[in-house]
Formats: sequence, C-alpha cells, structure tokens
Amino acid sequence: MFYIIEILGTIAFAISGALTAMSKKMDPFGVFIIAFVTSVGGGTLRDVLIGRTPVGWMQNLIYVYLICFGFLLAVVFRKKLDRFRRSLFLFDTIGLGVFTLIGLEKGIETHLHPIICIALGTMTACFGGVVRDILCNEIPVIFRKEIYATICIAGGIVFFLLRETGIPKDWIYIITSGLIIVVRLTVVRYKLFLPPLEKN
Amino acid sequence: MFYIIEILGTIAFAISGALTAMSKKMDPFGVFIIAFVTSVGGGTLRDVLIGRTPVGWMQNLIYVYLICFGFLLAVVFRKKLDRFRRSLFLFDTIGLGVFTLIGLEKGIETHLHPIICIALGTMTACFGGVVRDILCNEIPVIFRKEIYATICIAGGIVFFLLRETGIPKDWIYIITSGLIIVVRLTVVRYKLFLPPLEKN
Amino acid sequence: MFYIIEILGTIAFAISGALTAMSKKMDPFGVFIIAFVTSVGGGTLRDVLIGRTPVGWMQNLIYVYLICFGFLLAVVFRKKLDRFRRSLFLFDTIGLGVFTLIGLEKGIETHLHPIICIALGTMTACFGGVVRDILCNEIPVIFRKEIYATICIAGGIVFFLLRETGIPKDWIYIITSGLIIVVRLTVVRYKLFLPPLEKN
Repeated sequence: MFYIIEILGTIAFAISGALTAMSKKMDPFGVFIIAFVTSVGGGTLRDVLIGRTPVGWMQNLIYVYLICFGFLLAVVFRKKLDRFRRSLFLFDTIGLGVFTLIGLEKGIETHLHPIICIALGTMTACFGGVVRDILCNEIPVIFRKEIYATICIAGGIVFFLLRETGIPKDWIYIITSGLIIVVRLTVVRYKLFLPPLEKN
Repeated sequence: MFYIIEILGTIAFAISGALTAMSKKMDPFGVFIIAFVTSVGGGTLRDVLIGRTPVGWMQNLIYVYLICFGFLLAVVFRKKLDRFRRSLFLFDTIGLGVFTLIGLEKGIETHLHPIICIALGTMTACFGGVVRDILCNEIPVIFRKEIYATICIAGGIVFFLLRETGIPKDWIYIITSGLIIVVRLTVVRYKLFLPPLEKN
Repeated sequence: MFYIIEILGTIAFAISGALTAMSKKMDPFGVFIIAFVTSVGGGTLRDVLIGRTPVGWMQNLIYVYLICFGFLLAVVFRKKLDRFRRSLFLFDTIGLGVFTLIGLEKGIETHLHPIICIALGTMTACFGGVVRDILCNEIPVIFRKEIYATICIAGGIVFFLLRETGIPKDWIYIITSGLIIVVRLTVVRYKLFLPPLEKN
C-alpha cells in the first residue's frame, strides 16, 4: 500500500511541476525537467547529503517512467486540469505525507539523530517544490504562503514520539502520514497560514 | 583529438559564462565564478549525483587553468567579442557535443542504465548554463528558447543505438558528437525551436 | 579559541540570513530555513563536493542548536537589530575569517592541491550567502557589491605562503583569519569595491 501511495505521490508531484512550468510558457523540454526535479528533487538532495550515491532515481527506473507518465498526463490534459485541481491537490498532499516518511526512514537507516531525520523527511517532501520555484525564477512558495513544511516537521515529531510507545511500525506509518494529510487539507480548507515575520 | 576538443569546449563554456556575467555588470570575481560554474557545473552535478568525489575539477587542475584562460580572454577582449560571436558559438556547440559524450561515458563506467546515462550526458552538457542563468537571476534559457538539451538527448539515443551495431568506439564518438554539432548548427541557423506549452 | 569563534560565526551567519528573509516578508519557517542555509550552506556544498557525507551538520547537532539560537535572537530582537548592526557585521566578518580557515583545513585533510583548498575555503565562507540570495530571488550580493570572496582568496594564498615558512600552525591560523577580518573591516569602512566589468 505504501508503495502505491509513493507512486501516486511521484506522479502528482510531476504534474504539479509540469503545470507550473507550462504557466511560465516553457518549451516541452523545460516542462519535463521541471516535472522531474519537482518529483525527485527532494529525494535527490537527501541522498546527496547523506552520501547514498548514485542517487535513488538512477538505481530504479520506475521513477523516470512515473514522471514521464505524469508529464504526458499534464501536457495532454493541460486545458482540462483546472477541473481536476482538487484531485491533484489531494495527490500532492498524499505525496507530502508519504515522502516525509520515506525521508525519515532513510535518516534512521543512516543512523542519524531524530532531529536530522526530521530535517531529511521535510527536505524529501518539500525541496522538489523549492527547486521548481527557483528554476521558474520565483521566491519559493513554501517560504511565503503555506504551512507546508511546518506540517512535515510536526509529522516527524509525532513519528518519533509514537516510536517510543512501541506501536507496530505499520501503524506508525499510517498515523503519521494520515496526520500530515489531514492537517494539510484542514489548513488549506480554512486558509490558515503563518504570518510573515516583518521587521517593522 | 577528443582531449583537444574537450579543452576547446571548456574554454568556450567559460567565455560564454563570462560574457553573460559581464552583461549583468558583475564585478571581476562574480564574472570569474559564473565562468567557472558554466564550465564545470554540469560535470560537477553529474559527479555528485553518481558519487565520484572529490569531483573532477578538484582532481585535475587543467580545468581551473583553462577556465582562467577563458575568463582572461573574455575580459581582455570584452569589447571585441561580438565580432567573434560566430566562432564562440561554434566552440560552445563543440563543447555541447563533447560534454554529452563525456557524461555518457561516466554513466557507462558507473554501470547505470542507458536512460540514466543519457540523462547524465545531457546534464553534463547543459547544466552549467542552467546554473549560470539562475545565478544571474533569469529563467534558464534552456527551458525557454532553444532545442538545446533535446539535441543532447537525441545524440545519446543515437550513441546507444550505434553501440548495438558493433561499430568501433572511436567512430561512435565521432558520429554522435558530429551529429549533435551539425543538428545544433542547423537548428540555430534556421531558427527552429520547440513551441512553448501554454495552458490556454 | 578557534571553537568559540566558529560558534560566533555560525550564529552571526544565521542572524544575517534571518534578517534578509524577514525583509522579504517570509513566514517563520522560511526565515528559519534561510538562516539555516546561510549558516551551513557553504560547509555543506564543500562536504558534498569532496565526498564527506553525511555532511557536517548531520553529524554534530551543535550547528542546529546554534542556528536555532541565532534564529530566535533575530526574531525576538528584529525591531532592535538595526542598533546592533555594527556588532553583527563584526561577527559576520569573524565568521568569514574562521570559515575560510575551516574550508582550507578540510581541503588539506583530503589531500587536495592548494588552489583547490583555497577554492574550498572561499566556498565555505561565501556560499551560504549566495544560496540565501538565490532563495530570496536576488542576484547574489557577492557578485555585485563587495570585495568579499576576493579577501578569502587572498587569505588562502597568505595561508599557504606562511605554511612554507615553518611558522607554528596556531600562528598561521591567527594571522590568516586576522588578516581576512582586518582587510574586510577596512574595505567596508572605506567603501572599496571592485568595479563591474562592463561590456560597453
């Protein structure tokens, strides 16, 4: 089940990247690259920082195929995707939950401190969107508008608290990713966000 | 011969970076850094992603010297380089062909799948220009204007097809890089480009 | 003593990042991330390029704590920090000197050529500020305004010249970092800068 959700998340992230790039009038190659980095950017940064090379998507072609699929979907249905905005947002949110967990897992495998693991989880989930925005020449949306990364951090903290209780691993996964997904849906539904820190 | 062309490509990329940076009125240090990353950025990203560290230019100083040379050329002749625009463009195109092959080779050495090797070849040839544009605060030109990376991808595909035929390695190199160079010259000559993917 | 100064430098860099992010009206998470990358960005790039992974801040939590401290300082005193601008600038300059030395050391430990070591020192000291500016969507200040990196390069050259003379290591450290600090203070005091290289 975890695996299926990872697939959905990868595709959703690719579509989200492709849509952003198309709104910037990029050519097909540019759109593909933005879809690619949005989807695997977070995991790639994580792998590079902890030294797991060649990075993940080079060792398992499934990611390349999924991104091609998401890219084609986005291109073919680009005039109709506004209608699917809500489903897309749902997949994107699912991706957020799943990718956070994947990052946490890799950190634990590498025997890093829980704080670093939480940073890796957040990075895995969020960094693809940051690169997308930098390549499109915008201040990353994550730093401005939405309680996005903060939810991943909170999810990571819950994950480690649950681990102390001895609950079975599968349950911890389901609760943590479920929590991230539900909180994000709620936050966006009610337009909650962190106020900017202004100097004056 | 391959080696000489790599030298020309490295210098041409450095000059192209320096010219862009000077048009943004950067100071000499900024111009040097942009020349440097334009020239070795693609190979550096490739080495980091596949885990060949310390990265290439740290292990062989020839690159540093070539970039210094390209930088000095660009600075000294900055008011006259418009006249050499065509030779520069030729070197840049040669660099594109050669760097693609270098990236393909490194991927094969690391026993990666042909698709990943093609990605590495394209990255080696094109990523320096992407970083150059990001550091100069522009949407990378590669995503907007020119069939640049697409040619590298096509060259990579031809490379692997030729490998199946049993043609000697040297010939594969010459044919592939020649093809990339000829196609790019043709494309720019006749102003061919991929149309942007617009949403409306 | 070296260690205490590294602590001050880390905090000063974090505060400098946080202040820039707040002036861009980022939310608290964005401000924290910018503080983080400004502080450890240079060392992270260095570690990734030479293959020391997991990178430094993942193996020693002290950096995370110091950055949190700098972030909190910047947020709490954000309306009063203008008054401390000069002390901040002093810490930032101290950080510049110390981080250059740390980068030089890591390069020597990895048995790299002095030229590459100087590049690593400069990178360690300056790259955090480059990422900060890219994430805030500006042309990095280092490429435009100040003789910042050039001082680090000069410091690196002095470092290797002193090493030839057989002066004790501690003295080399003190002289090199002292030189970087004094030169930068002088340069900023008298508004010295490199003229932009213009094409026309």
